[in-house]
Amino acid sequence: MPKRVDHDERRHRIAEALWRIASERGLDGASLRDVAAEAGISLGQLQHYFRTKDDMLVFALGHISELAARRIGARVGSLAGDPSPRTLLRETLAEMLPLDDKSRTGQLVQIAYFVRAVHDERLRRHAKEGIPALREFFAAQIRRATEGGDIAADRDPDTEAMLLISLVDGLTGYVLLDVLPGEEAMRLVDAHLDRLFT
Amino acid sequence: MPKRVDHDERRHRIAEALWRIASERGLDGASLRDVAAEAGISLGQLQHYFRTKDDMLVFALGHISELAARRIGARVGSLAGDPSPRTLLRETLAEMLPLDDKSRTGQLVQIAYFVRAVHDERLRRHAKEGIPALREFFAAQIRRATEGGDIAADRDPDTEAMLLISLVDGLTGYVLLDVLPGEEAMRLVDAHLDRLFT
Repeated sequence: MPKRVDHDERRHRIAEALWRIASERGLDGASLRDVAAEAGISLGQLQHYFRTKDDMLVFALGHISELAARRIGARVGSLAGDPSPRTLLRETLAEMLPLDDKSRTGQLVQIAYFVRAVHDERLRRHAKEGIPALREFFAAQIRRATEGGDIAADRDPDTEAMLLISLVDGLTGYVLLDVLPGEEAMRLVDAHLDRLFT
Repeated sequence: MPKRVDHDERRHRIAEALWRIASERGLDGASLRDVAAEAGISLGQLQHYFRTKDDMLVFALGHISELAARRIGARVGSLAGDPSPRTLLRETLAEMLPLDDKSRTGQLVQIAYFVRAVHDERLRRHAKEGIPALREFFAAQIRRATEGGDIAADRDPDTEAMLLISLVDGLTGYVLLDVLPGEEAMRLVDAHLDRLFT
Protein backbone atom coordinates (compact mmCIF):
# COMPACT_ATOMS: atom_id res chain seq x y z
CA MET A 1 0.00 0.00 0.00
CA PRO A 2 1.35 3.47 -0.81
CA LYS A 3 2.22 5.63 2.14
CA ARG A 4 -0.74 7.83 3.10
CA VAL A 5 -0.12 11.35 4.37
CA ASP A 6 -2.51 12.76 6.93
CA HIS A 7 -2.94 16.24 5.44
CA ASP A 8 -4.68 17.70 8.46
CA GLU A 9 -1.96 16.44 10.74
CA ARG A 10 0.69 17.91 8.47
CA ARG A 11 -1.00 21.33 8.26
CA HIS A 12 -1.10 21.44 12.05
CA ARG A 13 2.52 20.38 12.29
CA ILE A 14 3.41 23.27 9.99
CA ALA A 15 1.32 25.70 12.07
CA GLU A 16 3.09 24.55 15.22
CA ALA A 17 6.52 24.96 13.64
CA LEU A 18 5.51 28.50 12.68
CA TRP A 19 4.45 29.18 16.28
CA ARG A 20 7.70 28.06 17.76
CA ILE A 21 9.52 30.45 15.43
CA ALA A 22 7.01 33.29 15.98
CA SER A 23 7.08 33.02 19.77
CA GLU A 24 10.87 33.21 19.74
CA ARG A 25 11.58 35.83 17.13
CA GLY A 26 8.33 37.14 15.66
CA LEU A 27 6.75 36.52 12.30
CA ASP A 28 8.87 38.76 10.11
CA GLY A 29 11.83 36.44 10.46
CA ALA A 30 9.82 33.34 9.53
CA SER A 31 10.39 32.40 5.88
CA LEU A 32 8.63 29.42 4.27
CA ARG A 33 12.04 27.75 4.19
CA ASP A 34 12.60 28.26 7.96
CA VAL A 35 9.19 26.89 8.78
CA ALA A 36 9.68 23.84 6.56
CA ALA A 37 13.00 23.12 8.31
CA GLU A 38 11.41 23.55 11.75
CA ALA A 39 8.55 21.21 10.77
CA GLY A 40 11.01 18.63 9.42
CA ILE A 41 9.66 18.66 5.86
CA SER A 42 10.98 19.98 2.55
CA LEU A 43 10.16 23.42 1.19
CA GLY A 44 8.36 21.69 -1.72
CA GLN A 45 6.18 19.71 0.70
CA LEU A 46 5.31 22.86 2.61
CA GLN A 47 4.42 24.69 -0.60
CA HIS A 48 2.02 21.86 -1.43
CA TYR A 49 -0.09 23.19 1.47
CA PHE A 50 0.72 26.89 1.48
CA ARG A 51 1.80 28.63 -1.68
CA THR A 52 2.66 31.90 0.02
CA LYS A 53 3.74 33.04 3.45
CA ASP A 54 0.44 34.94 3.76
CA ASP A 55 -1.60 31.77 3.19
CA MET A 56 0.43 30.01 5.87
CA LEU A 57 0.03 32.91 8.33
CA VAL A 58 -3.74 33.04 7.87
CA PHE A 59 -4.08 29.30 8.39
CA ALA A 60 -1.89 29.29 11.49
CA LEU A 61 -3.86 32.23 12.91
CA GLY A 62 -7.11 30.27 12.50
CA HIS A 63 -5.40 27.34 14.21
CA ILE A 64 -4.39 29.52 17.20
CA SER A 65 -7.91 30.82 17.68
CA GLU A 66 -9.31 27.29 17.43
CA LEU A 67 -6.88 25.96 20.04
CA ALA A 68 -7.50 28.91 22.38
CA ALA A 69 -11.27 28.43 22.07
CA ARG A 70 -10.83 24.70 22.71
CA ARG A 71 -8.64 25.38 25.79
CA ILE A 72 -11.25 27.75 27.21
CA GLY A 73 -14.02 25.27 26.37
CA ALA A 74 -12.17 22.43 28.14
CA ARG A 75 -11.55 24.54 31.24
CA VAL A 76 -15.12 25.75 31.41
CA GLY A 77 -16.44 22.24 30.65
CA SER A 78 -14.48 20.80 33.57
CA LEU A 79 -16.20 23.06 36.10
CA ALA A 80 -18.42 21.13 38.50
CA GLY A 81 -22.20 21.63 38.61
CA ASP A 82 -23.80 24.61 36.91
CA PRO A 83 -21.14 27.36 37.07
CA SER A 84 -22.29 30.90 37.80
CA PRO A 85 -21.73 33.68 35.23
CA ARG A 86 -19.00 35.06 37.47
CA THR A 87 -17.18 31.72 37.57
CA LEU A 88 -17.48 31.35 33.78
CA LEU A 89 -16.10 34.86 33.24
CA ARG A 90 -13.29 34.40 35.73
CA GLU A 91 -12.17 31.05 34.34
CA THR A 92 -12.23 32.38 30.78
CA LEU A 93 -10.21 35.46 31.77
CA ALA A 94 -7.72 33.26 33.65
CA GLU A 95 -7.29 31.08 30.56
CA MET A 96 -6.64 34.19 28.44
CA LEU A 97 -3.81 35.40 30.71
CA PRO A 98 -0.32 33.97 30.08
CA LEU A 99 -0.20 32.11 33.39
CA ASP A 100 1.53 28.96 32.11
CA ASP A 101 4.07 28.15 29.40
CA LYS A 102 1.49 27.04 26.85
CA SER A 103 -0.64 30.17 27.06
CA ARG A 104 2.51 32.33 27.27
CA THR A 105 3.63 30.92 23.92
CA GLY A 106 0.13 31.40 22.50
CA GLN A 107 0.13 35.04 23.61
CA LEU A 108 3.58 35.68 22.13
CA VAL A 109 2.40 34.30 18.82
CA GLN A 110 -0.73 36.44 18.95
CA ILE A 111 1.37 39.54 19.60
CA ALA A 112 3.60 38.67 16.65
CA TYR A 113 0.43 38.48 14.55
CA PHE A 114 -0.89 41.67 16.04
CA VAL A 115 2.23 43.63 15.07
CA ARG A 116 2.02 42.31 11.52
CA ALA A 117 -1.76 42.80 11.27
CA VAL A 118 -1.50 46.51 12.05
CA HIS A 119 0.20 46.94 8.66
CA ASP A 120 -1.49 44.14 6.73
CA GLU A 121 -5.17 44.44 5.89
CA ARG A 122 -5.80 40.79 5.01
CA LEU A 123 -4.28 39.58 8.26
CA ARG A 124 -6.07 42.30 10.22
CA ARG A 125 -9.42 41.04 8.92
CA HIS A 126 -8.60 37.56 10.23
CA ALA A 127 -7.06 38.82 13.49
CA LYS A 128 -10.34 40.54 14.33
CA GLU A 129 -12.55 37.55 13.53
CA GLY A 130 -12.76 35.97 16.97
CA ILE A 131 -13.41 39.18 18.92
CA PRO A 132 -17.16 39.64 18.32
CA ALA A 133 -17.82 36.03 19.44
CA LEU A 134 -15.76 36.51 22.61
CA ARG A 135 -17.45 39.85 23.30
CA GLU A 136 -20.87 38.25 22.82
CA PHE A 137 -19.99 35.33 25.14
CA PHE A 138 -18.92 37.80 27.85
CA ALA A 139 -21.99 39.99 27.30
CA ALA A 140 -24.26 36.93 27.56
CA GLN A 141 -22.77 36.01 30.97
CA ILE A 142 -23.21 39.60 32.13
CA ARG A 143 -26.86 39.63 30.98
CA ARG A 144 -27.45 36.33 32.80
CA ALA A 145 -25.90 37.78 35.99
CA THR A 146 -28.03 40.92 35.64
CA GLU A 147 -31.18 38.79 35.34
CA GLY A 148 -30.11 36.90 38.47
CA GLY A 149 -29.60 40.19 40.34
CA ASP A 150 -25.81 39.75 40.60
CA ILE A 151 -24.94 42.75 38.41
CA ALA A 152 -26.67 46.13 38.65
CA ALA A 153 -29.27 46.60 35.93
CA ASP A 154 -27.75 49.88 34.73
CA ARG A 155 -24.54 48.21 33.52
CA ASP A 156 -24.44 47.84 29.76
CA PRO A 157 -23.43 44.20 29.03
CA ASP A 158 -21.69 45.00 25.76
CA THR A 159 -19.65 47.83 27.32
CA GLU A 160 -18.67 45.72 30.32
CA ALA A 161 -17.71 42.82 28.00
CA MET A 162 -15.33 44.99 25.98
CA LEU A 163 -13.85 46.48 29.18
CA LEU A 164 -13.09 42.95 30.44
CA ILE A 165 -11.48 41.87 27.15
CA SER A 166 -9.37 45.04 26.94
CA LEU A 167 -8.33 44.79 30.57
CA VAL A 168 -7.11 41.21 30.24
CA ASP A 169 -5.25 42.11 27.05
CA GLY A 170 -3.47 44.98 28.76
CA LEU A 171 -2.61 42.80 31.75
CA THR A 172 -1.25 40.14 29.39
CA GLY A 173 1.32 42.62 28.09
CA TYR A 174 2.47 43.48 31.60
CA VAL A 175 2.76 39.81 32.59
CA LEU A 176 4.87 39.12 29.47
CA LEU A 177 7.11 42.10 30.34
CA ASP A 178 7.52 40.84 33.95
CA VAL A 179 5.94 44.03 35.25
CA LEU A 180 3.25 41.97 36.96
CA PRO A 181 3.51 38.40 38.25
CA GLY A 182 0.67 36.21 36.95
CA GLU A 183 -1.01 36.04 40.38
CA GLU A 184 -1.00 39.83 40.63
CA ALA A 185 -2.70 40.08 37.21
CA MET A 186 -5.32 37.60 38.41
CA ARG A 187 -5.80 39.62 41.62
CA LEU A 188 -6.44 42.71 39.46
CA VAL A 189 -8.99 40.77 37.39
CA ASP A 190 -10.73 39.74 40.62
CA ALA A 191 -10.72 43.33 41.88
CA HIS A 192 -12.40 44.42 38.64
CA LEU A 193 -14.96 41.59 38.90
CA ASP A 194 -15.65 42.60 42.53
CA ARG A 195 -16.73 46.00 41.23
CA LEU A 196 -18.79 44.58 38.38
CA PHE A 197 -20.73 42.13 40.54
CA THR A 198 -22.86 43.46 43.40
CA MET B 1 34.83 78.92 12.27
CA PRO B 2 34.59 75.16 11.96
CA LYS B 3 31.13 73.71 11.50
CA ARG B 4 29.62 72.81 14.86
CA VAL B 5 27.40 69.77 15.13
CA ASP B 6 24.55 69.88 17.61
CA HIS B 7 24.96 66.43 19.13
CA ASP B 8 21.66 66.44 20.95
CA GLU B 9 19.84 67.41 17.82
CA ARG B 10 21.59 64.66 15.90
CA ARG B 11 20.78 61.99 18.48
CA HIS B 12 17.13 62.97 18.30
CA ARG B 13 17.22 62.93 14.53
CA ILE B 14 18.57 59.38 14.70
CA ALA B 15 15.89 58.36 17.22
CA GLU B 16 13.20 59.76 14.96
CA ALA B 17 14.57 57.93 11.92
CA LEU B 18 14.47 54.73 13.97
CA TRP B 19 10.86 55.42 14.89
CA ARG B 20 9.74 55.90 11.33
CA ILE B 21 11.24 52.52 10.47
CA ALA B 22 9.92 50.83 13.63
CA SER B 23 6.37 52.11 13.20
CA GLU B 24 6.32 50.82 9.63
CA ARG B 25 8.04 47.46 9.90
CA GLY B 26 9.09 46.82 13.48
CA LEU B 27 12.51 46.92 15.09
CA ASP B 28 13.93 43.63 13.87
CA GLY B 29 14.24 44.97 10.35
CA ALA B 30 16.04 48.15 11.49
CA SER B 31 19.82 47.81 10.98
CA LEU B 32 22.24 50.61 11.94
CA ARG B 33 22.78 51.10 8.20
CA ASP B 34 19.03 51.51 7.50
CA VAL B 35 18.65 54.01 10.33
CA ALA B 36 21.66 56.04 9.15
CA ALA B 37 20.18 56.19 5.63
CA GLU B 38 16.76 57.23 6.99
CA ALA B 39 18.40 59.94 9.14
CA GLY B 40 20.41 61.19 6.15
CA ILE B 41 23.83 60.58 7.76
CA SER B 42 26.60 58.06 7.14
CA LEU B 43 26.91 54.79 9.02
CA GLY B 44 30.19 56.10 10.49
CA GLN B 45 28.47 59.22 11.81
CA LEU B 46 25.72 57.13 13.38
CA GLN B 47 28.28 54.83 15.01
CA HIS B 48 29.87 57.90 16.57
CA TYR B 49 26.74 58.13 18.74
CA PHE B 50 25.69 54.48 19.00
CA ARG B 51 28.19 51.69 18.71
CA THR B 52 25.61 48.91 18.69
CA LYS B 53 22.00 48.51 17.70
CA ASP B 54 21.16 47.84 21.36
CA ASP B 55 22.64 51.19 22.46
CA MET B 56 20.58 52.93 19.82
CA LEU B 57 17.39 51.10 20.81
CA VAL B 58 17.80 51.95 24.48
CA PHE B 59 18.41 55.63 23.72
CA ALA B 60 15.42 55.84 21.37
CA LEU B 61 13.22 54.16 23.97
CA GLY B 62 14.18 56.77 26.56
CA HIS B 63 13.44 59.43 23.96
CA ILE B 64 9.92 58.00 23.35
CA SER B 65 9.12 57.98 27.05
CA GLU B 66 10.39 61.52 27.41
CA LEU B 67 8.28 62.77 24.51
CA ALA B 68 5.19 60.91 25.74
CA ALA B 69 5.64 62.37 29.24
CA ARG B 70 6.12 65.82 27.71
CA ARG B 71 2.97 65.43 25.57
CA ILE B 72 0.93 64.43 28.63
CA GLY B 73 2.48 67.28 30.64
CA ALA B 74 1.61 69.82 27.94
CA ARG B 75 -1.97 68.57 27.69
CA VAL B 76 -2.46 68.59 31.43
CA GLY B 77 -0.71 71.96 31.76
CA SER B 78 -3.10 73.52 29.24
CA LEU B 79 -6.16 72.67 31.34
CA ALA B 80 -7.89 75.76 32.73
CA GLY B 81 -8.08 76.44 36.47
CA ASP B 82 -7.34 73.70 38.96
CA PRO B 83 -8.30 70.46 37.20
CA SER B 84 -10.03 67.76 39.24
CA PRO B 85 -8.37 64.34 39.68
CA ARG B 86 -10.95 62.89 37.29
CA THR B 87 -10.08 65.44 34.60
CA LEU B 88 -6.35 64.80 35.08
CA LEU B 89 -6.86 61.05 34.80
CA ARG B 90 -9.14 61.34 31.78
CA GLU B 91 -6.83 63.70 29.89
CA THR B 92 -3.82 61.49 30.60
CA LEU B 93 -5.67 58.37 29.46
CA ALA B 94 -6.83 60.18 26.31
CA GLU B 95 -3.25 61.16 25.54
CA MET B 96 -2.15 57.54 25.96
CA LEU B 97 -4.68 56.23 23.41
CA PRO B 98 -3.67 56.34 19.72
CA LEU B 99 -6.30 58.93 18.82
CA ASP B 100 -4.17 60.94 16.39
CA ASP B 101 -1.36 60.18 13.93
CA LYS B 102 1.41 61.22 16.30
CA SER B 103 0.32 59.05 19.20
CA ARG B 104 -0.55 56.23 16.78
CA THR B 105 3.06 56.24 15.57
CA GLY B 106 4.29 56.41 19.18
CA GLN B 107 2.18 53.40 20.10
CA LEU B 108 3.37 51.39 17.11
CA VAL B 109 6.96 52.07 18.12
CA GLN B 110 6.21 51.07 21.71
CA ILE B 111 4.67 47.80 20.51
CA ALA B 112 7.73 47.10 18.38
CA TYR B 113 9.81 47.61 21.53
CA PHE B 114 7.47 45.52 23.58
CA VAL B 115 7.81 42.54 21.22
CA ARG B 116 11.58 42.80 21.33
CA ALA B 117 11.71 43.40 25.09
CA VAL B 118 9.88 40.15 25.82
CA HIS B 119 12.98 38.30 24.59
CA ASP B 120 15.65 40.83 25.57
CA GLU B 121 16.37 41.41 29.24
CA ARG B 122 18.29 44.67 28.91
CA LEU B 123 15.54 46.25 26.82
CA ARG B 124 12.88 44.83 29.15
CA ARG B 125 14.49 46.60 32.10
CA HIS B 126 14.27 49.90 30.23
CA ALA B 127 10.79 49.22 28.84
CA LYS B 128 9.49 48.84 32.39
CA GLU B 129 11.15 51.99 33.74
CA GLY B 130 8.33 54.46 33.20
CA ILE B 131 5.54 52.29 34.58
CA PRO B 132 6.00 52.80 38.35
CA ALA B 133 5.98 56.59 37.87
CA LEU B 134 2.81 56.45 35.79
CA ARG B 135 1.19 54.09 38.29
CA GLU B 136 2.14 56.41 41.14
CA PHE B 137 0.77 59.48 39.30
CA PHE B 138 -2.55 57.68 38.76
CA ALA B 139 -2.64 56.42 42.36
CA ALA B 140 -1.98 59.97 43.65
CA GLN B 141 -4.97 61.33 41.69
CA ILE B 142 -7.13 58.51 43.04
CA ARG B 143 -6.03 59.22 46.62
CA ARG B 144 -6.79 62.92 46.10
CA ALA B 145 -10.28 62.05 44.79
CA THR B 146 -10.85 59.70 47.73
CA GLU B 147 -9.93 62.48 50.16
CA GLY B 148 -12.36 64.78 48.35
CA GLY B 149 -15.11 62.16 48.66
CA ASP B 150 -15.27 61.52 44.89
CA ILE B 151 -14.07 57.91 45.07
CA ALA B 152 -15.27 55.39 47.66
CA ALA B 153 -12.78 54.96 50.49
CA ASP B 154 -12.62 51.17 50.05
CA ARG B 155 -11.00 51.43 46.61
CA ASP B 156 -7.29 50.67 46.72
CA PRO B 157 -5.52 53.49 44.78
CA ASP B 158 -2.64 51.31 43.60
CA THR B 159 -4.97 48.57 42.32
CA GLU B 160 -7.22 51.08 40.56
CA ALA B 161 -4.18 52.77 39.01
CA MET B 162 -2.91 49.52 37.49
CA LEU B 163 -6.40 48.64 36.25
CA LEU B 164 -6.57 51.99 34.43
CA ILE B 165 -3.14 51.57 32.86
CA SER B 166 -3.87 48.00 31.74
CA LEU B 167 -7.27 48.95 30.39
CA VAL B 168 -5.92 51.77 28.25
CA ASP B 169 -3.15 49.51 26.96
CA GLY B 170 -5.63 46.83 25.94
CA LEU B 171 -7.86 49.42 24.27
CA THR B 172 -4.82 50.78 22.41
CA GLY B 173 -4.33 47.39 20.76
CA TYR B 174 -7.94 47.27 19.63
CA VAL B 175 -7.81 50.81 18.24
CA LEU B 176 -4.65 49.95 16.27
CA LEU B 177 -6.36 46.82 14.89
CA ASP B 178 -9.44 48.87 13.85
CA VAL B 179 -11.61 46.77 16.16
CA LEU B 180 -12.63 49.93 18.02
CA PRO B 181 -12.84 53.48 16.68
CA GLY B 182 -10.93 55.94 18.87
CA GLU B 183 -14.13 57.56 20.15
CA GLU B 184 -15.49 54.16 21.20
CA ALA B 185 -12.28 53.47 23.17
CA MET B 186 -12.70 56.85 24.86
CA ARG B 187 -16.34 56.04 25.64
CA LEU B 188 -15.17 52.80 27.30
CA VAL B 189 -12.60 54.75 29.36
CA ASP B 190 -15.38 57.10 30.47
CA ALA B 191 -17.64 54.16 31.36
CA HIS B 192 -14.84 52.77 33.54
CA LEU B 193 -14.26 56.17 35.18
CA ASP B 194 -18.00 56.49 35.82
CA ARG B 195 -17.75 53.32 37.92
CA LEU B 196 -14.61 54.41 39.71
CA PHE B 197 -15.94 57.83 40.72
CA THR B 198 -19.05 58.04 42.85
